[in-house]
Parts: sequence; structure tokens; C-alpha cells
Amino acid sequence: MKIAVLGGDGFVGWPTCLHMAAKGHEIHIIDNLSRRWVDTELGVQSLTPMDSIQERMRVWRDLGETPLHFHLIDVAGEYERLKSWLGEERPDAIIHFAEQRAAPYSMKSDRHKNYTVSNNVNASHNVLNAMVAVGLDAHLVHLGTMGVYGYSTVGATIPEGYLPVQLKLESGEMAEQEILYPANPGSVYHMTKCLDQLLFQFYAKNDRLRITDLHQGIVWGTHTDQTRRHDQLINRFDYDGDYGTVLNRFLIQAAVDYPLTVHGTGGQTRAFIHIQDSVRCIELALQEPPTAGDRVRIFNQMTETHRVRDLAELVSRLTGARIAYLPNPRKEADENDLVVTNKQFLALGLDPIKLEDGLLNEVVDVAQKYAYRIDRSRIPSVSAWTKERAARIETNPERQKFAVVGGD
Amino acid sequence: MKIAVLGGDGFVGWPTCLHMAAKGHEIHIIDNLSRRWVDTELGVQSLTPMDSIQERMRVWRDLGETPLHFHLIDVAGEYERLKSWLGEERPDAIIHFAEQRAAPYSMKSDRHKNYTVSNNVNASHNVLNAMVAVGLDAHLVHLGTMGVYGYSTVGATIPEGYLPVQLKLESGEMAEQEILYPANPGSVYHMTKCLDQLLFQFYAKNDRLRITDLHQGIVWGTHTDQTRRHDQLINRFDYDGDYGTVLNRFLIQAAVDYPLTVHGTGGQTRAFIHIQDSVRCIELALQEPPTAGDRVRIFNQMTETHRVRDLAELVSRLTGARIAYLPNPRKEADENDLVVTNKQFLALGLDPIKLEDGLLNEVVDVAQKYAYRIDRSRIPSVSAWTKERAARIETNPERQKFAVVGGD
Repeated sequence: MKIAVLGGDGFVGWPTCLHMAAKGHEIHIIDNLSRRWVDTELGVQSLTPMDSIQERMRVWRDLGETPLHFHLIDVAGEYERLKSWLGEERPDAIIHFAEQRAAPYSMKSDRHKNYTVSNNVNASHNVLNAMVAVGLDAHLVHLGTMGVYGYSTVGATIPEGYLPVQLKLESGEMAEQEILYPANPGSVYHMTKCLDQLLFQFYAKNDRLRITDLHQGIVWGTHTDQTRRHDQLINRFDYDGDYGTVLNRFLIQAAVDYPLTVHGTGGQTRAFIHIQDSVRCIELALQEPPTAGDRVRIFNQMTETHRVRDLAELVSRLTGARIAYLPNPRKEADENDLVVTNKQFLALGLDPIKLEDGLLNEVVDVAQKYAYRIDRSRIPSVSAWTKERAARIETNPERQKFAVVGGD
Repeated sequence: MKIAVLGGDGFVGWPTCLHMAAKGHEIHIIDNLSRRWVDTELGVQSLTPMDSIQERMRVWRDLGETPLHFHLIDVAGEYERLKSWLGEERPDAIIHFAEQRAAPYSMKSDRHKNYTVSNNVNASHNVLNAMVAVGLDAHLVHLGTMGVYGYSTVGATIPEGYLPVQLKLESGEMAEQEILYPANPGSVYHMTKCLDQLLFQFYAKNDRLRITDLHQGIVWGTHTDQTRRHDQLINRFDYDGDYGTVLNRFLIQAAVDYPLTVHGTGGQTRAFIHIQDSVRCIELALQEPPTAGDRVRIFNQMTETHRVRDLAELVSRLTGARIAYLPNPRKEADENDLVVTNKQFLALGLDPIKLEDGLLNEVVDVAQKYAYRIDRSRIPSVSAWTKERAARIETNPERQKFAVVGGD
């Protein structure tokens, strides 16, 4: 297959490109390299020394693998170039990662909120609009988030995108309907993924586009079978307070003897997936395209759920690190349950990698190997959801012990 | 009250400004005058001769009324200027009309789709974002559309925004929840209003903004008590295939002896409201602001529902005009029922103007008075929802009788 990977230079995008290229597919990376620019803006860098996209591609080709192609296009900002490219190259599938993907970054300031909304909505809409304009019947696979559900199950398992409900008719009878799960996003970033869902729903209905939306959990780990093949193929590893994700952050905190920063009570339950499973799920989704006219196919791309404090305790037992409980910069429930089904991917043959499979140690090894590159001052999560939350962090006594506040 | 009216130069915006100014409020119109530019783009003009915003304001002031203020700001494109203005002027309320509001225009081409999405989402998000950034606790009243519901009741009355449903818990018990009515937009324009709803939901929850969303039906009529006061205060009256709305279009078609163009079977049921009631509803909504922390308050701003073919027959009986049935450029059900509640506005004292109240004749009078300004070639609705729909219109025999196709 010819596959366009929008955002193919990113944390999940890059290993996805390698995974699919290793299967013999023709991969075209379309990326504006904005994630590298954000590193510059924030004054942080990947824990792992990450080469340029061109150098990564050269190394891959030199290993004798199917070459990758790169096109510097801003999906959100260069509609005409995107459309021309799609019209001329006519890929069989499009994998869409080209969005700003960090909740804390999306809440940093009004500029970051506007950027996240404008970038993400326009990126997704440009892709859909261009597909219709050039009559391209490609399978669009989008990386969404579990966060569209709102991180709470209210006593019912979170289904894969569609919720069966009963509603009362005029006649007094009850009728069953399946509805798109009611959106309840927890940040501006998560909100944009809810907006995406409505874009997809409309274009699947009006234009019969074939769309799969993957509601992904928090990705942990760093290596996949392909990134392990050469030092220069290494994936990015974010540890900073904006882009680092909770489990990976605990592991690097442990590696550099920094307390494991738990926000609030740590009673938040989250869904997780290892990066190797992430790329495998995308491959599985590509093998099962919907038919034109179908509603959007939605998968929950996660393999297990954990409470944040349980993860902290697990990492603490593994490494001896101490845990610090800090005020939560996010506006969310202190404690929530989360029961999620992922039976569609299991049915397609996914054999999940779990936390107990030993890969936590691999991440600790990576963290220790590159610990010399860690700027401890960039570990804290300082982006607060509201002014009230920011003030609570400012005045917290635990903060003094760190000199700077830490968390995720 | 000091009230900012975003989009205060438009079809409902202008009479709203006059209505509220007549009540003694301090009105600040914020508008980029894009609707006037779209007239230029499409090569059409309002049926009524419409003066510049400055001239309209001069006439109003010369009548001895509370002066209006005008600020040329692009709400979607000039975030920093909007934020500065809100931060300095700190209005008590903001009425938000500043969106591209025609479904056919939103479906004309990929450029129009992108413009509608980008303009409308960024406009709404800029307002919310700026309110939070400058700590402005104003009451935001947004003009939404009945179209977010998807024009179908599936046997149950459309509630005011929130739908009570039963869902099955893990335990097997059923639990009742009220959810935002599942979005089912019929065009890119309607889709943007569904996106708006999620923006409002998030900012009401995260930042305790006080927001009212008015799900408006199709507005008919042209005069209000204030626009009647002087010829130069006359409201705009769109008759073209993109911006003209169905009932007003039938009335001008009748006035110039053009067939009443019904799309499909005309079995579509739509919700309607007279423009005088529109401005009255906005006044009522302003009197009932939600409390900080409340969910978004949603009203259905409509007073009656009718099938399109019944309206055509009514106008035909009134005027003797013939009816032409044409292929529908929209992708929608041929026939739908629509039962809508509007009990909140009735409870607040709205005394609805109905079709039978004689105001149809007033519109026919306006149409006849300005019939010399009608360009018959701009009456047809040529914007099709898909290429298939466009082809059906092209090959339709009825089309030949017109030389050009007509509709709404």
C-alpha cells in the first residue's frame, strides 16, 4: 500500500512509519516538523538524542529497508499544497497524527489554546476537505484519544465510540439508539479531538469517506522492534512537564533520583498502551477499512487501566524512588474509575504487552543511559488549567522541597 | 447594560442592536463587515437598499435614540485586538453572531468549506479564550441553529439542548442521564455550530463562563419595530440561492412571478421564527443569565414548524404563484417530522408571531417595492452537497424551463 503518514516525525508517527515500511509499504511522511519547533520554544529536548528526519531516513535506507519519503507540508496551514499532493500521489491510506497532542501545552496560555484549536481543527478538516475535493477514496486512520470520553465510566464500561441508550418516545415507549459517546473533554487539547469526531461523522455521512478513529490511551515505552535496530533510529522520549506522559515521566524521575510527582491524590485512573502495541494496532486498523457509507469505525486503542498512584508505587518498588504528592494543575475529579473495552483489537489478534512483561526495565535503562541529558528544571508541570489551580501550586509547601514543582 | 454585539451588522445582528439600544442599553457593534464582502464575492446584493453601517448609525442617532458604537474588528482573525477591546471595555454581555451562517455557501467549494470551519471555530474560540484571558465575567449569548439536532425527531420531541436517556450500568440496572443532544449536522455550516457547542461546554465547565446558546430556526420577515422607523434603517433581505432562506425566498419569487422552487418533495419539516421574535428572544435570554458554574443554557429559538411544500402552497394560495419541484441539492431525508419544544421562551413571556398573523403580506409588499433590484439569475440555489447531487441538478428536465435552476 501507498500510505501517507501526516505527522510521521512524531513520537508515535515515527515508529509507525518504520513498522509499516518494514512490512513493505510505501511510506510518505508529511510533516511540518512543528514538534521539533515546540522543543525549541519550550527550551527542552527529547531525552534521547534524536536525529533529523532526513538522517533517520538515510539510516533506515542503509539498513536495506524500503525507503521512506518525506514532504515538508503544513497540513493545517497549507491546504492547497496538501490537496495537490493527495491528488497527484493518491495514497491508499492516510494516517493522521498531525495535531498538537499535549494537554498541558494546550493550557499554557491563551496563545497555546488558540494554536491548539486552530491547528488541530484545520489540520483534520483540511485532510477531509482535500480528500473530497480530489475524489480520493483512501482509508483515513486518525489518532484520537481516550480523553474524548472524559475519563469516567459512571458505572458503565466505556464502549468503542458508540453508546447504546434508551430514549422515551412521544408514545411513551422506550426506543434504543446508538449514539456517539457524549463528549466530555478535560482540556483544550482533548476538546479538539472531540471536535475532530464531529468532522469525521459529517464527512463519513455526507461524502462516504472511509474513516477509522483510534481512541488511544497514554503511550508508554520508547522502543519498537524497528527503532531498536540502530541507535540513530531511536524514538523521541519526552520527559518535560508539558509533553512527557505519566508513566514515562515516573521512570525517568526514578532514573535521576527525582521524586515521583503525583498530582492530587493520584486517584485518577488512566488507560495505557505500550508503543509497540500502538504501532501494531494501527497496522490492524489499516487491515480492516470500513466500507464507503459506513459510520466512522472507532477502536479503543489501549490495553490496561491503572490508577496514577498505583503506577507511582509500582515504580517506587522497582527503583526505590520516593513519591511526592503535589497539587493537581488540572481541573478534574480527584478519583475516578475507568472500565474500558478494547475487544475489537483483541478480536483482530492484538496480544497486549502489559506492564508486568518487563519492559518497564527497558525504559529505566534508556533513562539511565541518557540521564546526562536531563534538565531537572524542565521536569515540573507548570501549566495550570485555571488561575485558581495555578495559585494553589504557587502556595503549596511541598513545592519548596523541590525548589521547582514536579508532576504530570 | 453595556453589550458587545459581534456581527452586529448582519441580518439578525442589526435589528438586535436597534432593539436593545431602544431599551436604553449601550451597544457596541464589533464586525469585520464580511457579510458585505460576501455579497461582492457572489455578485448579489440585498433586495433592500442597505446603507453603510456608519450611515445607519447616524440615522439612528438623529432619531434621538441611544447612539450605537462601531468597532471594525475581525473576531476570528484578530484575537489580540478583540482581547484588548474586551479587557478595556469590559461589557456586561456579549451577543455572538460573528459566524458565516449560510449552509449553501458553506458547501459551494472546498475553499468555502475551509473558510466556514476556520472562521466560525476561531471566532467562537477567540471570544471564549479572550474572556478567560482578561477575566471577564460577561454573559455570552450565542446564536446557534436548530440544525445541530439534525432535523429529525425520531418520534420524540426535540428538547432544549439536553436529552434525557437511560443507559445500562455494569450492574444491569438502568441509570438516567441528561446528555447534550447528539449532534447530527446536515452541512459544513451546521457542523460548525455543533463544534461551537463543545467549545461552550468546555469553557462553562473549566472556566465557569456564563453562556447561553440559542438554537434558532429559520428566520423570516424583514422589519422590526425599530427598522420600520426610517427607510435607511431597513434590514438586509437576502433572496439569492446561498443566503436567502426558504420562506422569504418564496415570497420574493411570488413577487417577481418566478416559480416557487421546492427542493425534492418539499417534505422537509423546518422550524421558523419571525425576526421580531428573534430579537425579543435575545432580549429575554439576556434577562436570564446562567450562574457561574452552570452548564450552558440552551433555548430553542423558534415558534412553529412547517413542511416546505405546505409553505409553498400557502404562498401560492396567497399570491397565485406556481410551484416547481426540483432536485434537492442537499443530501437529506426527503421527508421528516419535527416536533420541538420552546417552552422556556414561552415561560419567559414570549408571545409568538405566527404565519397567520398577516406579516406574510408585509414581506410581499417589501418584495414588490424593491422588485426592480432583483437579479433573477441569482435566485437559483446552485450549491450542491455532493458531486452526485450536482449532476442530478444538471440533468433535470425541469431545469430547462427556468434556463437556470431555482430553489433553496
